[in-house]
Amino acid sequence: MDFSSDTSAPAHPAVIEAIGEANTGQASSYGADHTTLALESRLKAIFETDDLAIWPTASGTAANALALSVICPSTHSILCHSDAHIEQDERGAPEFFTGGAKLHLIDGANGKITTSDLQSVLATVDERFVHAVPPAVLSLTNLTEWGTVYTPAEIGELVKLAHGKGLKVHLDGARLANALVTLRVSPAELTWKVGVDVLTFGLTKTGAMGCEIIVFFGAAADTIGALKARAKRSGHMPPKLRYISSQGLALLENGLWLDLAGHANAMATAFSKRLLELPGASLITPVEGNEVFANIPGDLAERMLSSGWTFYPWPGGGYRFVCAWSTQIEDINAAFSAL
Amino acid sequence: MDFSSDTSAPAHPAVIEAIGEANTGQASSYGADHTTLALESRLKAIFETDDLAIWPTASGTAANALALSVICPSTHSILCHSDAHIEQDERGAPEFFTGGAKLHLIDGANGKITTSDLQSVLATVDERFVHAVPPAVLSLTNLTEWGTVYTPAEIGELVKLAHGKGLKVHLDGARLANALVTLRVSPAELTWKVGVDVLTFGLTKTGAMGCEIIVFFGAAADTIGALKARAKRSGHMPPKLRYISSQGLALLENGLWLDLAGHANAMATAFSKRLLELPGASLITPVEGNEVFANIPGDLAERMLSSGWTFYPWPGGGYRFVCAWSTQIEDINAAFSAL
Amino acid sequence: MDFSSDTSAPAHPAVIEAIGEANTGQASSYGADHTTLALESRLKAIFETDDLAIWPTASGTAANALALSVICPSTHSILCHSDAHIEQDERGAPEFFTGGAKLHLIDGANGKITTSDLQSVLATVDERFVHAVPPAVLSLTNLTEWGTVYTPAEIGELVKLAHGKGLKVHLDGARLANALVTLRVSPAELTWKVGVDVLTFGLTKTGAMGCEIIVFFGAAADTIGALKARAKRSGHMPPKLRYISSQGLALLENGLWLDLAGHANAMATAFSKRLLELPGASLITPVEGNEVFANIPGDLAERMLSSGWTFYPWPGGGYRFVCAWSTQIEDINAAFSAL
Amino acid sequence: MDFSSDTSAPAHPAVIEAIGEANTGQASSYGADHTTLALESRLKAIFETDDLAIWPTASGTAANALALSVICPSTHSILCHSDAHIEQDERGAPEFFTGGAKLHLIDGANGKITTSDLQSVLATVDERFVHAVPPAVLSLTNLTEWGTVYTPAEIGELVKLAHGKGLKVHLDGARLANALVTLRVSPAELTWKVGVDVLTFGLTKTGAMGCEIIVFFGAAADTIGALKARAKRSGHMPPKLRYISSQGLALLENGLWLDLAGHANAMATAFSKRLLELPGASLITPVEGNEVFANIPGDLAERMLSSGWTFYPWPGGGYRFVCAWSTQIEDINAAFSAL
Repeated sequence: MDFSSDTSAPAHPAVIEAIGEANTGQASSYGADHTTLALESRLKAIFETDDLAIWPTASGTAANALALSVICPSTHSILCHSDAHIEQDERGAPEFFTGGAKLHLIDGANGKITTSDLQSVLATVDERFVHAVPPAVLSLTNLTEWGTVYTPAEIGELVKLAHGKGLKVHLDGARLANALVTLRVSPAELTWKVGVDVLTFGLTKTGAMGCEIIVFFGAAADTIGALKARAKRSGHMPPKLRYISSQGLALLENGLWLDLAGHANAMATAFSKRLLELPGASLITPVEGNEVFANIPGDLAERMLSSGWTFYPWPGGGYRFVCAWSTQIEDINAAFSAL
Repeated sequence: MDFSSDTSAPAHPAVIEAIGEANTGQASSYGADHTTLALESRLKAIFETDDLAIWPTASGTAANALALSVICPSTHSILCHSDAHIEQDERGAPEFFTGGAKLHLIDGANGKITTSDLQSVLATVDERFVHAVPPAVLSLTNLTEWGTVYTPAEIGELVKLAHGKGLKVHLDGARLANALVTLRVSPAELTWKVGVDVLTFGLTKTGAMGCEIIVFFGAAADTIGALKARAKRSGHMPPKLRYISSQGLALLENGLWLDLAGHANAMATAFSKRLLELPGASLITPVEGNEVFANIPGDLAERMLSSGWTFYPWPGGGYRFVCAWSTQIEDINAAFSAL
Repeated sequence: MDFSSDTSAPAHPAVIEAIGEANTGQASSYGADHTTLALESRLKAIFETDDLAIWPTASGTAANALALSVICPSTHSILCHSDAHIEQDERGAPEFFTGGAKLHLIDGANGKITTSDLQSVLATVDERFVHAVPPAVLSLTNLTEWGTVYTPAEIGELVKLAHGKGLKVHLDGARLANALVTLRVSPAELTWKVGVDVLTFGLTKTGAMGCEIIVFFGAAADTIGALKARAKRSGHMPPKLRYISSQGLALLENGLWLDLAGHANAMATAFSKRLLELPGASLITPVEGNEVFANIPGDLAERMLSSGWTFYPWPGGGYRFVCAWSTQIEDINAAFSAL
Repeated sequence: MDFSSDTSAPAHPAVIEAIGEANTGQASSYGADHTTLALESRLKAIFETDDLAIWPTASGTAANALALSVICPSTHSILCHSDAHIEQDERGAPEFFTGGAKLHLIDGANGKITTSDLQSVLATVDERFVHAVPPAVLSLTNLTEWGTVYTPAEIGELVKLAHGKGLKVHLDGARLANALVTLRVSPAELTWKVGVDVLTFGLTKTGAMGCEIIVFFGAAADTIGALKARAKRSGHMPPKLRYISSQGLALLENGLWLDLAGHANAMATAFSKRLLELPGASLITPVEGNEVFANIPGDLAERMLSSGWTFYPWPGGGYRFVCAWSTQIEDINAAFSAL
């Protein structure tokens, strides 16, 4: 049983089907195709605003780094959680795309930055002190790296502080769908309505082959020209963009993406219940999405591994177990029974 | 009728089918999957050597720039033709990925660099003169940007000169299949057997959705670790790499890629014959692949456009017409008849 | 006799004296010192405008590259003459400081770009074509790389074309003083009054140890904050900046800089007269500053070298002989007599 | 009384004198001059080895960043103390020069990294995990940012751990002289004999106008060619390099540099004694060089400021007071008496 990552899952059949359907006749290259335009319309409906601009990519690392590169000058820094994906798992992509901007790390329980910690950091900023690297961006992640959620109110407060100091706000939404389902709020309520300027809207972990859409809201949408230049320059303007866009369209139809995320979340909750029945097992963070972070005795971990489970020890301690759209309750039950 | 580019064509059905087949069950992420390993084996067979290392990408710009970035230090330059794709059409991607290396341009008829011109450039290089940017790489393109071919002997001579000065040789093979078919030589004969160190092996224009494979030969294969770090860092290590690799596998099975390229070449030849029947039309360069570069009278161009043809005026003069695997002789004939 | 470069000359005694005088007591670091403020005032007087901002550096390469980096995004290009110092002699500094912008080369006789050539290049620019690297800057050099001058009218016309397409204009004035003396115009007339946005105001070749001042005019002065961040980031904000600024102050007092340049120019003219008396010697470009570019027979060059002359063969053919503030007519005469 | 920084001090008269003496006749440009060659010989004597290569710069930030850029690939990271100058005070210069390498911060009392903390960090490194940025360099500072010293033994242990994992070791010696005087060891004993690969040998704070010499030891000296290319490219190869080198020569003659550092250290000790006599004053770190870090009551700080003292509050709490070669005991006493 594979609990290693939602990126190990296959794509949802609707995604494959959509690719086949997109594969008819000639189409304009590099983003001028009908599929990409349809995706943009769909996103305007889903986010309840026409005031946005988008760019679909096949990689979350690329989407994050490209988005950051147009709002953070190379001489500035990006505030983020110490465990943020952009810090821990992207091989320095933000530094590469921005031309050497710094990540300024902020600790925080449950993978979350608190307003008081953000306030402390912002209080030390002095733009006139040319020797230090001042922040230009606050980057948040929702679902967080520890499987928890920020509420709209929490994000709104952090954004207010950031905007007050002239920073832009980026949201890494690699698992945005999982957060939305848990919070029972709309995409707009969790993003631009609370001030998010740029979103990495991830659908790969939700069920795509590779589809991570950069969404600029409001004034930030003016940077779309600069973004496209950087996308081309970094190899993220594939000629046949329709094959990325069609994945997004398929998942965003009739709420499929939220259904899949809801299922994955439910599987994680079910998984955690079974896990907690085992002696010595305890949760590190609450299960608020499709990931379970837990401490378990060493011999239990051994038994899981020898029983064919796949999962990772997590930096900082404990283990991570991830459920996906394709995880079945029967398989979870069978996996636990086999221990 | 669309003659704008082979990138406007759909993917071959076998490619879509292969993606569907790859879409079963969990798979290791980031290149450790079985599909990618199978692709590597296939390439070893096709290139008749085990002494290679590969990295599949979804973008030719990315493949070129990544390949160049591991063989050209930021303080050095890349020799290439003035009309090379890396100079004209990649929005500065080589400069971005290398950290600011220069492209040093060499003119040449038919999109080809001559040995005497290369010799002249190399003769002026003085590594001890720290003020100038010395070359570290020679980058060639085959099929060239003007639809012509370098023979193995021509490449071999250029490589010999370049290696003699310590340069590595990169081959942009966005349309390698088209060149192979025309030259009736093997992939090995057109690459490592004549000294090519790194190849961008393009399959997108041949019939994939997006599949451009970096292939390192011989000693250059030692840089694969550095390449992977740079691929991850630039967003070109998608988690579900199997969907790129499966495209390559499908096309490389039973010579499908060469069949498709052969068909596209034949269509271009047929197209050029019809074109030359029109008064005032003449070829700019010989048709040696799937592209036709021609001068045509202004009113003819107008008629083509108003008749629904899609094609581009070409920088430097004339027009380019491109055929793809999906171009049908009936459609060409109908297009000409409709003028 | 050393005719290799004006950078081989010692500093003028007034410069050394000024450094000694600046060396009293504590002073604010990093540009907030009185000497640097005095230099700024002096420059406002010399350029007859308060609407400027400055940053003194010790290196012409740094001054050029820093200036370019705040007006050229990494995704754009810089138009310059094929023989420009930024292209030929700065080891890719513009590419490094801009984060990978391209230099787009324009040929032209006597080291000068013509309005018609500039017009041709600008006519091909299409900002919407995301694949190509559009120009953001026109960089001119006066005195040119071939020892000739642009008149204010010539610069004005080029600037008008550039501004018309939204480009900024940079002037590399490594030998600005030599041009001013020849043209008998004021610093203002050769720079901001004809539309120059940013000037590299060189004084090293004029007689400083190392003093090259970036001068932003008009709206470009708003980038001074960004420039300082980049100066610090690239090691061009030395703590004891007063020692650079005091050099500038010394040379700019009572027109010393123009006197020195006038002397160097006169020496070059005298040199060229003697040279032309030799059989087979001819000028490649007119002598309009302190440099002589000449074709001379091989055996004459040999005799010069064996007679102890120092000078360089020039890329593109011929030889360059440079006079400095310290060149004496007696020495020139003696050098020729000794042949 | 100015206790703000040793960079606010003037240069020692011997430095100014040496510049005047270097200012005679023509000299080869760009580092081929006799003064720079003499400096290299002097450094070989001082460091008791011929197995070194040097490059003089005018800026500590440049020297650090250039040194780091040739030993740290852009895909890797540099381990350093959280308070290191390269992290806190160089506006992202290491990121800029390396092309986006990361700084990985390690906390530690008194500005020092402990072997156990280094061991913990190194234990988590897994070069095969391509998503994380592995370290390539350990950068230490001696005198540390908190005015304390590492002993040769302490450095040796840290180096051993770093080398054991394949890392190179850089030493930021902006105040190396101050550390040497305190430790009563030789330059060799504090650098290459304990394994340091690259040293930033600072003399600006000791008494130069601007002279910070990059010194490569042993095998690292092979990178001098790459370093020079990067120095030219970043504007740190001024044509008249002799004026930087002559400063170093002057200070390194007859141990002047150590005398000046010894005096500055003595002044700091004297200062700290007077300070501790004041009610409520206490040291934050031991005084082991020319800097005093102290907690003092707010009203005392006010009195100092209104009495004309210049000094800085220090990030993290308390205040820093710095003595220089030019600080006089009479002035210290007068300053305290005036409170």
